[in-house]
Amino acid sequence: MMRTRFLQGLDELKHKLLQMGGLAEQAIERATEAYLKRDPKLCYAVFESETGINSAEREIDELALDLMAMQQPMAGDLRFILACVKINADLERVGDQAVNIAERTLDLIREPEVDFRVDVGRMAGSVSTMVRRALESFVEGKAEVAEAVLEMDNIVDRMKDEAFVTLTNVMKEHPEQSQRALDVLLITRNLERVADHATNIAEDVIFWVRGADVRHGGPHHLQIDDRTPKSSNM
Amino acid sequence: MMRTRFLQGLDELKHKLLQMGGLAEQAIERATEAYLKRDPKLCYAVFESETGINSAEREIDELALDLMAMQQPMAGDLRFILACVKINADLERVGDQAVNIAERTLDLIREPEVDFRVDVGRMAGSVSTMVRRALESFVEGKAEVAEAVLEMDNIVDRMKDEAFVTLTNVMKEHPEQSQRALDVLLITRNLERVADHATNIAEDVIFWVRGADVRHGGPHHLQIDDRTPKSSNM
Repeated sequence: MMRTRFLQGLDELKHKLLQMGGLAEQAIERATEAYLKRDPKLCYAVFESETGINSAEREIDELALDLMAMQQPMAGDLRFILACVKINADLERVGDQAVNIAERTLDLIREPEVDFRVDVGRMAGSVSTMVRRALESFVEGKAEVAEAVLEMDNIVDRMKDEAFVTLTNVMKEHPEQSQRALDVLLITRNLERVADHATNIAEDVIFWVRGADVRHGGPHHLQIDDRTPKSSNM
Repeated sequence: MMRTRFLQGLDELKHKLLQMGGLAEQAIERATEAYLKRDPKLCYAVFESETGINSAEREIDELALDLMAMQQPMAGDLRFILACVKINADLERVGDQAVNIAERTLDLIREPEVDFRVDVGRMAGSVSTMVRRALESFVEGKAEVAEAVLEMDNIVDRMKDEAFVTLTNVMKEHPEQSQRALDVLLITRNLERVADHATNIAEDVIFWVRGADVRHGGPHHLQIDDRTPKSSNM
């Protein structure tokens, strides 16, 4: 059956995207650990993972194209595939941010440690949660979960602003530490950019779920594995 | 004719995307001018333009979806539509960067002017050229032009690195100027991110043109207005 093969393809697309999400999350977690433990080996591990993330991105795009061309997809399918393509691009850039954090960390650990009273670990934790929740909202097709991600973005923004005030004060009062304070400041901005990507992913999920709700009675691809007929036009 | 309507739709998609590109370029140019002239009014103009850019993004996505659903598009068409969707997302984020630059500029002009010997105008000029060329490569379907954009990215990266060295030295030597030096440093990073988006756009053009070359004998949508049959499978 043509339609069955197509649905299997959509399922494969979803799984590949989740794997990609796993790689991106891992990269951020490693970069954060590299910072917290001042471990150059973990920085290099982040650099090495970039190639895999980039090739995963291309693969997902090609699969999406193949699926769109395979048969006349329905509007709900197209919306799902398009959301996958956009989420894919964001995940790739989460990987780029991990690389940036690892670069800053390498720079930082060349000099003696200073405690700037900026809780990078906590900020990274919130950011990772946002990425994970955004992917969950995608897997479960739940706009409510995606909306919770949008709200978390404000918390991360506040953390970034607090870090900014703290670190610019360090620069003024301890100019000899300004290089290191700047590295930490840039790391908090990289984390904030990851939060922005999580926000973009959540918005794409809402775009897909809401569009599917309005047009086709709900996101149906989520039930590929244990599917029952959901609506007459599926 | 169904196919004619579809081709008109592709043409409309291209035109809307170019308008979007115009809005994004304008936002960056205004933000740069705001910085150079220390003009808060221009900053507010950048903030106001964001809404228009965001709604243009949604419109383009919806049009892309409609086109994909309209008939069974050919692989070359799909690749073109997908490139449009990805370029669209990058252009929207160019607009976000313009907002960031305008925010930093508002912060800067609250304090007396300092000449940091960082040529933001020249850097912004290079970055704007990258965006413009990336859009040209898209309009003309020329991978060579897109590749030139990728090379320009190295120049912008070097400018950013030079600015980094200059400004971190200011922070160390003139801590009372560190806040302003940081604002300028963040502006150079925002510009570099715009250059990254131009690079992404150029890569999407290459993905589309090369894919079309390999699979379908060349990018054909460019000749919608004065079209002649290009290959037997179009």
